[in-house]
Amino acid sequence: MAGAAPTRVLMGVNESTINGYPHASISSRKAFEWTLDKIVRSNTSGFKLFFLHVQVPDEDGFDDMDSIYASPEDFKSLKRRDQARGAHLLEFFVERCHAIGVACEAWIKRGDPKEVICHEVKRLQPDLLVVGCRGLGPFQRVFVGTVSEFCVKHAECPVITIKRSAEETPQDPVDD
Amino acid sequence: MAGAAPTRVLMGVNESTINGYPHASISSRKAFEWTLDKIVRSNTSGFKLFFLHVQVPDEDGFDDMDSIYASPEDFKSLKRRDQARGAHLLEFFVERCHAIGVACEAWIKRGDPKEVICHEVKRLQPDLLVVGCRGLGPFQRVFVGTVSEFCVKHAECPVITIKRSAEETPQDPVDD
Repeated sequence: MAGAAPTRVLMGVNESTINGYPHASISSRKAFEWTLDKIVRSNTSGFKLFFLHVQVPDEDGFDDMDSIYASPEDFKSLKRRDQARGAHLLEFFVERCHAIGVACEAWIKRGDPKEVICHEVKRLQPDLLVVGCRGLGPFQRVFVGTVSEFCVKHAECPVITIKRSAEETPQDPVDD
Repeated sequence: MAGAAPTRVLMGVNESTINGYPHASISSRKAFEWTLDKIVRSNTSGFKLFFLHVQVPDEDGFDDMDSIYASPEDFKSLKRRDQARGAHLLEFFVERCHAIGVACEAWIKRGDPKEVICHEVKRLQPDLLVVGCRGLGPFQRVFVGTVSEFCVKHAECPVITIKRSAEETPQDPVDD
């Protein structure tokens, strides 16, 4: 078994709704630390982690209120800045893996997170998908939707969902 | 990390709807073998497995059509027989764990599987709950209900759901 190919674990990670980029959300960090602590443990060569960050196209444009768009080039720089913010988010996870000696890869996609995650599962065929979740009640779920519920139903690999603990949950549980 | 307490994994296991006791269902066997192969791997001392089999009280009594109940004692023997069948189911999992050197415990409860599993999570506080599932479509789910969906929402620990693959799924996907 020691010589077998490592277990390939895909993790969907996103930015904090409270602190913004490059800070990872509470549920992403929780899911990541839990996976290292409870699954990988000391068997660092037995696992390879894949970090996928899905950027949601910014519909209301609040982030870009101070920007002036005078040419098509300006929009390109905007896109580059988004990419950079996503990269800084991924840096946290990749650095932590390198420090403890777990192989990893990380990349950014744009779109609807739940659809993109399931599409990437189909493409990458990992052994396991890890998704953190906020643990919202039924009333909050109606308005927010949950990525984890969708992935459990539709992803073509085993899925682990990890809720935040009560003490990690912000005052407004929709925050993360 | 090597000296840390093992990761405690609770698995809900049930009998095959096709072959009956003591045969484990397709989804239970799949979830078990997957967990050994992809999570435990060679790190056999890093994990302890807990097998919970929940017996559903037999409402229609088909299994007992040939039995004659002449005294309260007869009902006791019925209960003992049920227990024995459940024990033989658990034997499969426990023997497999012993053969590869993974610590384990197994026990039987009666009741509604989804409620009992979540109750046992509260009591045992495992690090992880593993549930196999049939991967039913929305139409089938309405009539059958799914234990895995309930556990993902309500169990107070991370939950991994493992679907059967297409080639493991019987002609009637409600069978298991």
